Amino acid sequence: MTIDPPIDFPREIGSVIDGLREARLDWRAGHARHAEHGIRFPSRNALKRILRELSAALFPLRLGPPELTATSENGWVDATLETTLDQLAAQIVLELDLAHPGVRERAAAERAIAITGALAGRLPALRRLLDRDVEAAYRADPAARSVDEVLLRYPSIAAVIPYRIAHELHREGAPIVARTIGEIAHQRTGIDIHPGARIGPGLFIDHGTGVVIGETAELGSNIHLHQSVTLGGALPARDGRRHPRIGDRVVVHPGAVLLGPIHVGDDSAIDANVVLRHDVPARTVVRAPAPVLEPAAVIEHGIAKGN
Amino acid sequence: MTIDPPIDFPREIGSVIDGLREARLDWRAGHARHAEHGIRFPSRNALKRILRELSAALFPLRLGPPELTATSENGWVDATLETTLDQLAAQIVLELDLAHPGVRERAAAERAIAITGALAGRLPALRRLLDRDVEAAYRADPAARSVDEVLLRYPSIAAVIPYRIAHELHREGAPIVARTIGEIAHQRTGIDIHPGARIGPGLFIDHGTGVVIGETAELGSNIHLHQSVTLGGALPARDGRRHPRIGDRVVVHPGAVLLGPIHVGDDSAIDANVVLRHDVPARTVVRAPAPVLEPAAVIEHGIAKGN
Amino acid sequence: MTIDPPIDFPREIGSVIDGLREARLDWRAGHARHAEHGIRFPSRNALKRILRELSAALFPLRLGPPELTATSENGWVDATLETTLDQLAAQIVLELDLAHPGVRERAAAERAIAITGALAGRLPALRRLLDRDVEAAYRADPAARSVDEVLLRYPSIAAVIPYRIAHELHREGAPIVARTIGEIAHQRTGIDIHPGARIGPGLFIDHGTGVVIGETAELGSNIHLHQSVTLGGALPARDGRRHPRIGDRVVVHPGAVLLGPIHVGDDSAIDANVVLRHDVPARTVVRAPAPVLEPAAVIEHGIAKGN
Repeated sequence: MTIDPPIDFPREIGSVIDGLREARLDWRAGHARHAEHGIRFPSRNALKRILRELSAALFPLRLGPPELTATSENGWVDATLETTLDQLAAQIVLELDLAHPGVRERAAAERAIAITGALAGRLPALRRLLDRDVEAAYRADPAARSVDEVLLRYPSIAAVIPYRIAHELHREGAPIVARTIGEIAHQRTGIDIHPGARIGPGLFIDHGTGVVIGETAELGSNIHLHQSVTLGGALPARDGRRHPRIGDRVVVHPGAVLLGPIHVGDDSAIDANVVLRHDVPARTVVRAPAPVLEPAAVIEHGIAKGN
Repeated sequence: MTIDPPIDFPREIGSVIDGLREARLDWRAGHARHAEHGIRFPSRNALKRILRELSAALFPLRLGPPELTATSENGWVDATLETTLDQLAAQIVLELDLAHPGVRERAAAERAIAITGALAGRLPALRRLLDRDVEAAYRADPAARSVDEVLLRYPSIAAVIPYRIAHELHREGAPIVARTIGEIAHQRTGIDIHPGARIGPGLFIDHGTGVVIGETAELGSNIHLHQSVTLGGALPARDGRRHPRIGDRVVVHPGAVLLGPIHVGDDSAIDANVVLRHDVPARTVVRAPAPVLEPAAVIEHGIAKGN
Repeated sequence: MTIDPPIDFPREIGSVIDGLREARLDWRAGHARHAEHGIRFPSRNALKRILRELSAALFPLRLGPPELTATSENGWVDATLETTLDQLAAQIVLELDLAHPGVRERAAAERAIAITGALAGRLPALRRLLDRDVEAAYRADPAARSVDEVLLRYPSIAAVIPYRIAHELHREGAPIVARTIGEIAHQRTGIDIHPGARIGPGLFIDHGTGVVIGETAELGSNIHLHQSVTLGGALPARDGRRHPRIGDRVVVHPGAVLLGPIHVGDDSAIDANVVLRHDVPARTVVRAPAPVLEPAAVIEHGIAKGN
């Protein structure tokens, strides 16, 4: 929509420009390391494309183009990885340039290639881990109709594929690229897994919105989390961890908040909305306190509306 | 960014390709039904477009093109439905081909047309249900300025329009297309309503992020849910339900988790963060246990940071 | 996919068109103010672009184009604001036309220019507030590597930049444009801050998914919220507020629900999943009730699956 005849903004816009400049200069005066030029941060859009291509290379007949067959898929994976790993290395170069502005361009490129190569070498193992994640979701969810539905439509897998890729990059020395991949998945699914977390095979995150898994969390195999579960940090650290360590075959129900470097033993279950700050032995059920029922003469609708 | 001169990836990439192939073959050996060719799954992007068009056909003067008038809208709805229902039938054919690979193409097309026609026949009733959803939100929210603001900007409506369409498709035999529509809404709003749930008129989901309504849940009329509420599943089932049945005019406050095939009577209210696994009579208030207050000599900031 | 030969939809589609028209007429009969023509609501897509440009004008060397330098940034900010504020004023004209359909076009344009000018005048102060928000997140999060990572990748900042812009527009009389900006941020981050809320400097929302801050909430300086925290409404109002007033340096842990016009004193901490409906003095820790541990002979996996 255009306003006709046009109305000019007041001349005072000049003072806005001046005020913004002063604010920027004040910020920079207090942050010595803050460079006075634009930066090339790893690109969220480029990493979205790279993530899509890596996912397709892991599951070519499901996440790749529909015309692929068992005969043609291998060549397609080869060609896709060649292109995509090169693009990923370029993003890692951007991160290394930011972290070490003085390093020679060639040295950063070589380091980026090494990190990318390490991820590539891990891809077959990641595929096997992800197969177990798909199977875990399919087994645990009575509403799941096929493993394909899980792979193609479940938020759990849409978060765990990026996490498993990001975790390798985080370990190998590209934490900003890893974090960007993690935030892409967080925005899509509401599931926020820090790339530093260590997670065994067979993870299933039911529904997923609001789940948080912190940087030093450690999860065993066949963990089943529900929506709004927090595996959160608290100090003091223990064995270098600020976050929980969870054993095997543990179920955590919606809204439970586990805080600090506690340990939850194998085969335990944490009830919905429990707040847990202490260790739990194996084969334990941790229950939320019971609610209180009262008759209500008049229910006031909207009494506690959350907006 | 290109690295110049280019650095080749190590020759070992060949072993990555081999390792990925082996992982795929191992998976397929364990999953007999898993076809060894690409599949055409119903398309998320196509269903996004179809969902937008169906929404506009339901509310032409609000969600359709701005140049429409009360005089021109009827012809536009007719033309839009003709195109959109055809595209929807094509997506349902993809689902039927996946579920029954042996079926003749023409039989799948006829079945898809029947399912789409059943949805079409329900559209006037859906519009009336959605009008009651809009009115419920407008009445319940002191911050709402107009019914148009509710229809155009509230996450509740952005989740309930897709749900009501997906529910019809789920009932008629297109559960994967229905689930894809549900996940489109889940990704946009953080509200995850399984298309199988049965929900009466006048649903309002305040803010909505983190809400989960399971496959066999049944909600009466004029239900008011808040963010992070779970109506979740637990076994054993009761009357075929794994999820709660909620009466009329019930309010559920933020974070409450209702689990299993329980029954909540009319005009009851469930307090925030309550965990409920038992039936509740009509006109009951279910309260969360009271918290404990302690003086704090020193507040440790960040003590329980969730990352 | 096309079905060949085409299958026509049953002729009964005509009755669907008729049924939809009747539903629309019934709705309009019950809503006298509902105009019988299309409306031009402020555009979500246009406001997404405007929000991106305003954010870049606030942080030109980080959110603007990478080729900018400290020498060139000022001219770029000037040119960007000139274009973007004009586009914003056009969106505000749409809102004013909806609210007051009888007003002369020129009067609406002048009012829109005044609102936009008021926002422009506040931009330097917003930049200084946002610098404190960035610093607060950087200080509070052990996982944060740089202020740039916080600014460019943290959901907290991705929600707080839009909130601080929307708050000015809400105050100045463009609540629908403000709410649309708020919903853009809500969809991206899962953080739902009503533009009417009043929030001091140094806000950090950790992870953020599921956070709700209501219309009349008031937050002091250096507040640290975690995911799934609700600052929600309840009646009766107090001093015109339906939502909590929070002092300075308060930490609220994941899942806590604070309801109604209560007051939480400075330097207090609210534990995870607490439900709070009463005032809390300064320097207080509010703890959730302790959970109950029980040995489990058999853990039933999936017993409380939330779907």
